[in-house]
Amino acid sequence: MASRVPALAPHPAPKAPTLSARLFETRRQSIDLTETLSPEDMVVQAMDDASPTKWHLAHVTWFFETFILAKHLSGYRVFDERFNFCFNSYYESQGSRHPRARRGVLTRPGIYDVFSYRAHVDDALARMFAQSGEPEGEIARLVEIGINHEQQHQELLLTDILALFAANPLRPAYRKPKPAAVGRGEPPGVSWIEYPGGIHQIGHDGAGFAWDNEAPRHDALIHPFGLADRLVTNGEWLAFIEDGGYRTASLWLADGWATVQREGWQAPLYWEHRDDQWQAMSLEGQRPLEPAAPVCNVSYFEADAFARWSGKRLPTEFEWEIAAAALPVEGNDLGSGSLRPVPAGNPAPGVPRQMYGDVWEWTQSAYLPYPSYKPPEGAIGEYNGKFMVSQQVLRGASCATPHGHSRSTYRNFFYPQQRWQFAGLRLASDIS
Amino acid sequence: MASRVPALAPHPAPKAPTLSARLFETRRQSIDLTETLSPEDMVVQAMDDASPTKWHLAHVTWFFETFILAKHLSGYRVFDERFNFCFNSYYESQGSRHPRARRGVLTRPGIYDVFSYRAHVDDALARMFAQSGEPEGEIARLVEIGINHEQQHQELLLTDILALFAANPLRPAYRKPKPAAVGRGEPPGVSWIEYPGGIHQIGHDGAGFAWDNEAPRHDALIHPFGLADRLVTNGEWLAFIEDGGYRTASLWLADGWATVQREGWQAPLYWEHRDDQWQAMSLEGQRPLEPAAPVCNVSYFEADAFARWSGKRLPTEFEWEIAAAALPVEGNDLGSGSLRPVPAGNPAPGVPRQMYGDVWEWTQSAYLPYPSYKPPEGAIGEYNGKFMVSQQVLRGASCATPHGHSRSTYRNFFYPQQRWQFAGLRLASDIS
Amino acid sequence: MASRVPALAPHPAPKAPTLSARLFETRRQSIDLTETLSPEDMVVQAMDDASPTKWHLAHVTWFFETFILAKHLSGYRVFDERFNFCFNSYYESQGSRHPRARRGVLTRPGIYDVFSYRAHVDDALARMFAQSGEPEGEIARLVEIGINHEQQHQELLLTDILALFAANPLRPAYRKPKPAAVGRGEPPGVSWIEYPGGIHQIGHDGAGFAWDNEAPRHDALIHPFGLADRLVTNGEWLAFIEDGGYRTASLWLADGWATVQREGWQAPLYWEHRDDQWQAMSLEGQRPLEPAAPVCNVSYFEADAFARWSGKRLPTEFEWEIAAAALPVEGNDLGSGSLRPVPAGNPAPGVPRQMYGDVWEWTQSAYLPYPSYKPPEGAIGEYNGKFMVSQQVLRGASCATPHGHSRSTYRNFFYPQQRWQFAGLRLASDIS
Amino acid sequence: MASRVPALAPHPAPKAPTLSARLFETRRQSIDLTETLSPEDMVVQAMDDASPTKWHLAHVTWFFETFILAKHLSGYRVFDERFNFCFNSYYESQGSRHPRARRGVLTRPGIYDVFSYRAHVDDALARMFAQSGEPEGEIARLVEIGINHEQQHQELLLTDILALFAANPLRPAYRKPKPAAVGRGEPPGVSWIEYPGGIHQIGHDGAGFAWDNEAPRHDALIHPFGLADRLVTNGEWLAFIEDGGYRTASLWLADGWATVQREGWQAPLYWEHRDDQWQAMSLEGQRPLEPAAPVCNVSYFEADAFARWSGKRLPTEFEWEIAAAALPVEGNDLGSGSLRPVPAGNPAPGVPRQMYGDVWEWTQSAYLPYPSYKPPEGAIGEYNGKFMVSQQVLRGASCATPHGHSRSTYRNFFYPQQRWQFAGLRLASDIS
Repeated sequence: MASRVPALAPHPAPKAPTLSARLFETRRQSIDLTETLSPEDMVVQAMDDASPTKWHLAHVTWFFETFILAKHLSGYRVFDERFNFCFNSYYESQGSRHPRARRGVLTRPGIYDVFSYRAHVDDALARMFAQSGEPEGEIARLVEIGINHEQQHQELLLTDILALFAANPLRPAYRKPKPAAVGRGEPPGVSWIEYPGGIHQIGHDGAGFAWDNEAPRHDALIHPFGLADRLVTNGEWLAFIEDGGYRTASLWLADGWATVQREGWQAPLYWEHRDDQWQAMSLEGQRPLEPAAPVCNVSYFEADAFARWSGKRLPTEFEWEIAAAALPVEGNDLGSGSLRPVPAGNPAPGVPRQMYGDVWEWTQSAYLPYPSYKPPEGAIGEYNGKFMVSQQVLRGASCATPHGHSRSTYRNFFYPQQRWQFAGLRLASDIS
Repeated sequence: MASRVPALAPHPAPKAPTLSARLFETRRQSIDLTETLSPEDMVVQAMDDASPTKWHLAHVTWFFETFILAKHLSGYRVFDERFNFCFNSYYESQGSRHPRARRGVLTRPGIYDVFSYRAHVDDALARMFAQSGEPEGEIARLVEIGINHEQQHQELLLTDILALFAANPLRPAYRKPKPAAVGRGEPPGVSWIEYPGGIHQIGHDGAGFAWDNEAPRHDALIHPFGLADRLVTNGEWLAFIEDGGYRTASLWLADGWATVQREGWQAPLYWEHRDDQWQAMSLEGQRPLEPAAPVCNVSYFEADAFARWSGKRLPTEFEWEIAAAALPVEGNDLGSGSLRPVPAGNPAPGVPRQMYGDVWEWTQSAYLPYPSYKPPEGAIGEYNGKFMVSQQVLRGASCATPHGHSRSTYRNFFYPQQRWQFAGLRLASDIS
Repeated sequence: MASRVPALAPHPAPKAPTLSARLFETRRQSIDLTETLSPEDMVVQAMDDASPTKWHLAHVTWFFETFILAKHLSGYRVFDERFNFCFNSYYESQGSRHPRARRGVLTRPGIYDVFSYRAHVDDALARMFAQSGEPEGEIARLVEIGINHEQQHQELLLTDILALFAANPLRPAYRKPKPAAVGRGEPPGVSWIEYPGGIHQIGHDGAGFAWDNEAPRHDALIHPFGLADRLVTNGEWLAFIEDGGYRTASLWLADGWATVQREGWQAPLYWEHRDDQWQAMSLEGQRPLEPAAPVCNVSYFEADAFARWSGKRLPTEFEWEIAAAALPVEGNDLGSGSLRPVPAGNPAPGVPRQMYGDVWEWTQSAYLPYPSYKPPEGAIGEYNGKFMVSQQVLRGASCATPHGHSRSTYRNFFYPQQRWQFAGLRLASDIS
Repeated sequence: MASRVPALAPHPAPKAPTLSARLFETRRQSIDLTETLSPEDMVVQAMDDASPTKWHLAHVTWFFETFILAKHLSGYRVFDERFNFCFNSYYESQGSRHPRARRGVLTRPGIYDVFSYRAHVDDALARMFAQSGEPEGEIARLVEIGINHEQQHQELLLTDILALFAANPLRPAYRKPKPAAVGRGEPPGVSWIEYPGGIHQIGHDGAGFAWDNEAPRHDALIHPFGLADRLVTNGEWLAFIEDGGYRTASLWLADGWATVQREGWQAPLYWEHRDDQWQAMSLEGQRPLEPAAPVCNVSYFEADAFARWSGKRLPTEFEWEIAAAALPVEGNDLGSGSLRPVPAGNPAPGVPRQMYGDVWEWTQSAYLPYPSYKPPEGAIGEYNGKFMVSQQVLRGASCATPHGHSRSTYRNFFYPQQRWQFAGLRLASDIS
């Protein structure tokens, strides 16, 4: 049963830690994520889209070194001049760099060198703050960017490790599986929530950190729409498969159908039919599929085809933001420690569930600049704007998104054929 | 100098010919376009994106046969059962088909068979109308679609012939060059027109023919914007090249820059620096560049980079439509016979020039469905909707667009790297 | 039953026509081969390995113009300077050229221009001979090369037309099928002929024309061997297929097995299982398979796997030459007009059948230079020597080889994965 | 000055260690080679042709487990059933396996698991010998094969580590450079040795171990030839480069020239012109080129082009074997510890230098079976025979070939475009 969206009580913010404390906490969390990994696990690149753990650890450190220490800490000694070539990702303005698809050949510097690099940079940052006090102004802005940048790579680190372990015939687990009692049952029921149309404010209002691509906040005219109050589940996806979803051209975008044919897609990326049951590779190793949990590791092409099969559609990113705006930023993210999408909890009338966490949600919005968007000056300006073509926006967060990284205006983006992210979908509908 | 958009006097419509007369006129125009082509010219496929002339001629005929005659003319005898396999383009619902990239191997059926096929279908259509009178209802709808479909292929036929002749070291001319006195001079001046924001109606209103992707007409909130009153010229593009445009990463979208590097782009598709001057291949053969004429055969990536270099941006498709809505549908299209983009005429305050004709105009809008868009039922539903991902919208018309095919709500679309179309750009700007 | 090779009676040579007569006869035969082809058939390139008919016709003409007329006929006017770029095949010393894989885009010059080109060159050659008499010395040598070169392209023309028509869903016939009464029966019996070892002279002895790669004639030590007295048949190949030949890794060279897997090979190139029977595409269109006729359009990989499956091996090129040396150069070549491989005739003790004609025979010899081989000076030196790596030698002739083009020392060569030639195999065995 | 080949004094063999002692010595040497490598270095695959160190260590162990222990040691417990999938290289008869190009994703089993695997297998082998005594008969044959197999992988391990470190922008050294006093001077002089023609015995005579592809020993007719008494040097290669060798089409095989153009080759694989000098990457890191040392890391295409430029040719594999047959098996192999090619020592009349060690020597012989060659039965039969197409034979040994692994009949083989081996060349000439 559909219902109107309710007014929600304001969510009281906890007392915030200082920026420098958040910085070092974030730096430590990156290391914590590597606890179960061997040096070998950390050097290999599973595929072109993925990067090695070690590269992630070094690249985020290079970011602090290059954009903060080298420019703002007088007397700072660069750890190793050659790292600029090794660990620059895509900043054309920072010079040439090691090719993305070859990041996995960097067995040197070794993981212990990279840990030393991290310590060197952390020490310098601490020294800087000890000298100059808690960061302010431009430096505070760069530290905040650095924290958020490192959080993004924490998620990618997990995404890429899953890709690596899924490519291994031994199907190793990133961590020992925890019991999943709830997920074996029936998919939880779904309710539809109706939202009225009208002019809405979209984008970040400037309070607190946001990426440049979330600005400027602007008016947008929205048409009335409905939104499912939970994510699409594995059980529902199985019905799609069994109904011939992957064999029915009319359900697919033309590029999607060509991809299905060329790649031989028959199920989400990490699904495997083995021993008479569907299993899926996860950070807990290969496990039986949980029908009630949200489907994960699907492409935009698949999400779109599923929505068409359902007689629905994907939401636009604006619709998602409107539905999310009034909700507390809570959910099954990395902070929960589950490391996997979990079934939706009990419904509450008019309140969408699973908005933050579990899986990123594909939207039907192409990734484009907001009206009057201008990228920042300098290298940081390469962060978001230059990717604004041919990609689709995802909203929300996933089970691998660091806690505190999310907000209603956050815009994630990937190419429509990419499947290695923790990405799923929620259905929307027109209301006439 | 910028000015407000003026109220324009209504444009009186000429007395319209009957639908069947328009149909046969369109059919005849396709044949007229082949006058200068040899059978060999008509069979070869210049590249995967292009199709042979013969294939275009047969495919549009197959469209009438399959969707009208086979279903609505009792006793109709299909010309050749095997043509469904040969000349279906991408209609999954119509069965399997010859691979797109292999259309050029179809030396049989020969061009004279295809002419016979056309005559057979035209005869049957004429017989149908003789029996049942001027088409009405569903048949009229299908005939109208067939006319517009054939017009689209007329443009593609010219586009693809240019690709073929440009790949030939002899650089043959599709037709003898006409003098181009006006184009050698300085680029004409450009004025900027300001448009107010507000809620505008976008999309087709249902009067007269339109494609399904132009509907439904809906409200959209527009922010104030400025629009150049003419297209970007070859002369301006030369300045971009000379300023290092193709060598400056910061001007480009990341995918665009990767394409520039991989393909070695240094100029628009058909430009060549030879004998100490810039030349460009055209339907009139290889000719010296006309600085005052609009630039042509550029990709979205290039158009976007040029706009960034100019300190401007590309318009959205909605902005273009608002500017075009009140203008007469007139310009340098196929009806003018010029077969090439020509310099803008004299300016009139507040009236954008070159809106229809010369070149299709890249917009910064991704090709997406309008709110509540539903593709038509049946095979015709495959016409537009299934391409709504990863492409950019172009608006207007080109020097190869058949006269009468254009309107302000028309949405053309191509991938951002494609350059073989008659595509250029017009600049836009934010107004704060 | 195996038998010793008999002494054969000498084969009386007919009175030879003059060189110039042979030249013009060869030139005319090229045109005769195009009788059933449309201009469209003659321009298209079926695949990278193949060339258009028109290109063959022009290239062989360019050969006479470039190497004879331009150098040896004073006052000769080159037909079109641009043709050197269009119709040079691979002579690096003759300047840059149109890319091989793009020969099919040359719709201009048109076929009638190419016919004119041929006439222009033939006229000049005739004028040259009228002035200077029957060619002698260097010019005679070049004319002889030109004749043989054109004959090679006559075979390729047919090979490539078959590739083109096989890629066409209509499966057109190059010429109307003739009845094939003999081929439907059982494969003819096979006898084995034993040849003694010892030192044999291999290579051309200098009497009459031969390619440079057939020289120098030299001693080679041969081990005793056995040779099947006929070619492997379609019927035998069917048994190989039915025994799982294409699914049994242990029968294949590693590169061959990788090719089978990657390309999905399940039968020879033009075989198709349709309407409950095996059919094969041929110059007479798609026809039921003739079990008694020699298998055709197989790669070296397949020939080698078949031999292993048979418990035999392929012959070396020297073994083949020894067996052929004493035989008359007769067989089912282009002169017979059959245009397809035909079943072996009645056996004669100790006389191998089908040595010249039907299909080229893959040998286990890599294509390498003979001891002390030196390529000729100048452009003609690029004819053979630079291909001496990674290819396998084929011996004999095929049903598409012009009559008079064959001899026992002739070395043909192709890559081991290539299948579009009229190529089959004959088995050999060790004798200990 | 050329001279006749002298009679050499017989080379006294040292007292041979037992087979089992040699086995465990070989097993230990593999581990010794990894001393300077980190776990990360040992897991990564530099390119498709290369394999990770860890994979080499495990694969050779799998060989002993699969072909000896599992079949011949009763009660043997397989270390891990899943390793058969992970570490089978190409034995189709041993079941499916992990794709070659994906060996680098196997971060698990970890290097310590692989060391345990080695210990487990070594213990079992020792137990087997303790129970049954020194191996004899079939087991001795398999142990001998296993030793030689592991030696081959020792060389590949070094080859592949060099490829990995050369791909690293830090250019790490496998081991600290040793001084190279001798190599900086002028290339040593070269003498030519003449060998008479006649019937020679080629191939292994059955005494001691040899691969199946070295048999059967057979008569071959050899034409008189000359052979350079040392390898081609870096200094000579520089002269080839400076003379435009890489830009002169006429020097190259057609496939070679196409490769030069496509890959942009301008020098041997690991050469780099940096800081105004030629440097080369080596196991001792990036170092200035030594003009007097043998050129290394060249393809067959390059070796062949160099020989043509020199007015010489490459030797056949038979010519090399004849020249080597009477020489002691001594040279700069892995036993010398130099890990790099070194300049030739002082000449001795009629005695070719550098025949074993420094670099493998490309020959003009295609890799083909000897007359009456039969691969062994069973999986071991997949070792050599199935690669006998499209490759060229190399003779001798390199600076990375384990001591004791070489002999005059040894046949190494690679594809003509491959450059990552320690491969160079020696010139030969015809004598008429």
